[in-house]
Amino acid sequence: MKTTLVDIYLPELFELLSIPTISAQKEHKKDMKLACKWLTKKLRKLGFKADILATSGHPVVYAENLKAGAKKPIILVYGHYDVQSPDPLEQWVSDPFKPEIRSGNIYGRGTADDKGQFYTWIAAIQEILKKDKKLPVNIKFLLEGEEEVGSKNLDEFVNQNTSLLKADICAISDGHNISESQPVITYGLRGIVYYDVRLKSLAKDVHSGTYGGNVLNPVTVLAQIVSKLKNENHKVLIPGFYDDVRKLTKKEVFDLSKFPFREKEILKETGAKVVAGESGHIVQVRGGARPTLDVNGIWGGYQAEGPKTIIPADAGAKISIRLVPYQTAIDIAKKFEKFIKSLVPEGIDLTLELLSDGEPIIVDKESKYFKAAEYAYKKIFGKKPLYELSGGSVPITATFKNGVNMDSILMGYGLPDDGLHSPNEKLSLSMFEKGIQTNIKFLKSL
Amino acid sequence: MKTTLVDIYLPELFELLSIPTISAQKEHKKDMKLACKWLTKKLRKLGFKADILATSGHPVVYAENLKAGAKKPIILVYGHYDVQSPDPLEQWVSDPFKPEIRSGNIYGRGTADDKGQFYTWIAAIQEILKKDKKLPVNIKFLLEGEEEVGSKNLDEFVNQNTSLLKADICAISDGHNISESQPVITYGLRGIVYYDVRLKSLAKDVHSGTYGGNVLNPVTVLAQIVSKLKNENHKVLIPGFYDDVRKLTKKEVFDLSKFPFREKEILKETGAKVVAGESGHIVQVRGGARPTLDVNGIWGGYQAEGPKTIIPADAGAKISIRLVPYQTAIDIAKKFEKFIKSLVPEGIDLTLELLSDGEPIIVDKESKYFKAAEYAYKKIFGKKPLYELSGGSVPITATFKNGVNMDSILMGYGLPDDGLHSPNEKLSLSMFEKGIQTNIKFLKSL
Repeated sequence: MKTTLVDIYLPELFELLSIPTISAQKEHKKDMKLACKWLTKKLRKLGFKADILATSGHPVVYAENLKAGAKKPIILVYGHYDVQSPDPLEQWVSDPFKPEIRSGNIYGRGTADDKGQFYTWIAAIQEILKKDKKLPVNIKFLLEGEEEVGSKNLDEFVNQNTSLLKADICAISDGHNISESQPVITYGLRGIVYYDVRLKSLAKDVHSGTYGGNVLNPVTVLAQIVSKLKNENHKVLIPGFYDDVRKLTKKEVFDLSKFPFREKEILKETGAKVVAGESGHIVQVRGGARPTLDVNGIWGGYQAEGPKTIIPADAGAKISIRLVPYQTAIDIAKKFEKFIKSLVPEGIDLTLELLSDGEPIIVDKESKYFKAAEYAYKKIFGKKPLYELSGGSVPITATFKNGVNMDSILMGYGLPDDGLHSPNEKLSLSMFEKGIQTNIKFLKSL
Repeated sequence: MKTTLVDIYLPELFELLSIPTISAQKEHKKDMKLACKWLTKKLRKLGFKADILATSGHPVVYAENLKAGAKKPIILVYGHYDVQSPDPLEQWVSDPFKPEIRSGNIYGRGTADDKGQFYTWIAAIQEILKKDKKLPVNIKFLLEGEEEVGSKNLDEFVNQNTSLLKADICAISDGHNISESQPVITYGLRGIVYYDVRLKSLAKDVHSGTYGGNVLNPVTVLAQIVSKLKNENHKVLIPGFYDDVRKLTKKEVFDLSKFPFREKEILKETGAKVVAGESGHIVQVRGGARPTLDVNGIWGGYQAEGPKTIIPADAGAKISIRLVPYQTAIDIAKKFEKFIKSLVPEGIDLTLELLSDGEPIIVDKESKYFKAAEYAYKKIFGKKPLYELSGGSVPITATFKNGVNMDSILMGYGLPDDGLHSPNEKLSLSMFEKGIQTNIKFLKSL
């Protein structure tokens, strides 16, 4: 029987998967350190200079092997060694931290998100070194321990270590493909500005019989404001909102149309009865290349059973805007704040809090790194990758873009049903193998 | 020292106040019976035929003294012997069920709401009998035990006992005057229809990055619907909504304008920065003679700290409409339901639940009962009463109007600061005395 890459690298991956690096739980602080030590030891064996660097939270592992020389590009591999809590434990078939193979999959917390995925780069490097004795490019690793708790200290770390992290491209394997046979490259991500909006008109809830007709109801006002932010044709009404939105070429729209994020997928995945959005744009474009505004939550007054005859004193909403290139978070935040302030009538106190923001990202499809990734995928999977503009955000990509002006290339090796953050998280063995091979092809083609 | 009515009737009132008739709490079921027995015994002593009658909930006390003869009118005195829970107990200066006199007030649960108030009628009757040996009119009593839990079984009781309860007018002392020197008569009350409105568009909350731009957000849709129910000029936009609204004469508006429910009172009582309502109407008219619509509560999606990037699966609101004569609950409910259904886009499931409804009430100011009340107030308080159209509802008035076609006259002897439903509820001793005297004048002038 032929020895596969899986045979070679699985035992080591299992060691890493066995460390319960749950970043949200204080009692695992020691495990975080343990994983860092394990990773630095492993990377040092591969000829890397590797260190555990402190942040204001869990440490990061930084490693570099720059022996390819100054003429060769530097690839920064980003990954995260922390994992989500495995709760609810009783729903796991096998222990989340005792990885197990069942029907061609590795089951365990962190298999797909993200230990098993970033490990494909370590394995690829080891394979290349085994055969070629040297690396074709310079490689840096940044493996963080707080991705599952919002990477809250990474911005600061990146900004304080810009020269250390300088690279030509960042490779991130923390996503998924469409199927075992169809690879996909995400070449853009939406940004976000996310607000907490609060309105107050009264000192306390008052009787709706006594005062109804004479005081401003903050819930009604909030509804009126929300209805003016976006109309029923799904157009955002903030003045200047679409000014900087990138226009897509017909070719780009055609390429995106191949991505199987269509009406039927959306209906199935969400349980919606209709797909609804801006007219004149296909679903894939609306989901990734058009900005949008959503109310993520709303509250005010009485929410329990039965009637209660009050006019609420205050009301609030979480309102977020998904940004696309070349909108910027700062510009849209300014426009949003100005507009919403203009909608608030006299007698209502408005409080706005920006809860999070992140820039949209677009990767140059003509760059040699993008071409190299396309080539590697095609060689290993036997199929040209499809292209996706993702509707969500991967904040680290914006951190690198803003902090060290570096593009990212998203080369995920998961599958849609991997169960990230859920019980029985898995990674397909064949995707693990293909991931290692794709990385080898990618690195050697640069 | 002169013996006052207070001296005479306080000891008996204290007995009644000492029975903890908390209708919401099962453990007080015995106390409810005890109070009923106490009341029937008392009324029998005054020559009434008195009975404890079962309802589907706590019993009612029904009593009648029809010795004045068929040519004399029948007055039905309505009151309620149940009280609110005294929680929070630690905030009471004296035991809520051990009434105590402090600075000219009786402190205790039920003093103003409603034992102390309906007791003014019992005392008035006793006084009249003491001097005249007979009553000038026929009198019935209906004292219920579920007012504080929504009088949920009273409609049924009234409808099953229409001939028993038949009377020319219902007198209700369960409200308050403006001050110890300024009486007020409430001659109208708003009605209500109150809905629970729910929208659902998705099977579950979904990621706002992945699906934002392609699915209907039920919170946004709800906001759009709410903004179409009532515009920013405070006009309700339900078609036909104002068709049956009673028009006021200039004289009526002038009389209402004397009632001290003005901008400054509203600002002080609610903490609002502006008084806002339909233009072209004074505050007193907007608060009692104009219908209005309020969102009493709204909810949907994420309401806790920080950001959560979801599109909520569902959203809901409590929406109530305050009705005025000659609108009817059934007509407005029909118009509301038709209109809201027309506003819901395809792909959204709407669920409507009518949580409560009550008809608006208007009392004939030219009737002899109204004139008698005016006369009695003027004689005892030394001042002509002011007129009020109340913005709230007293459901019992609608029950009597609809069930036995009987008007009500609201002769309250409380004061605005009595602390109903709050710790340290009180009734002013001088209002108690004036109440008894006013009732005597009222009954003797008929």
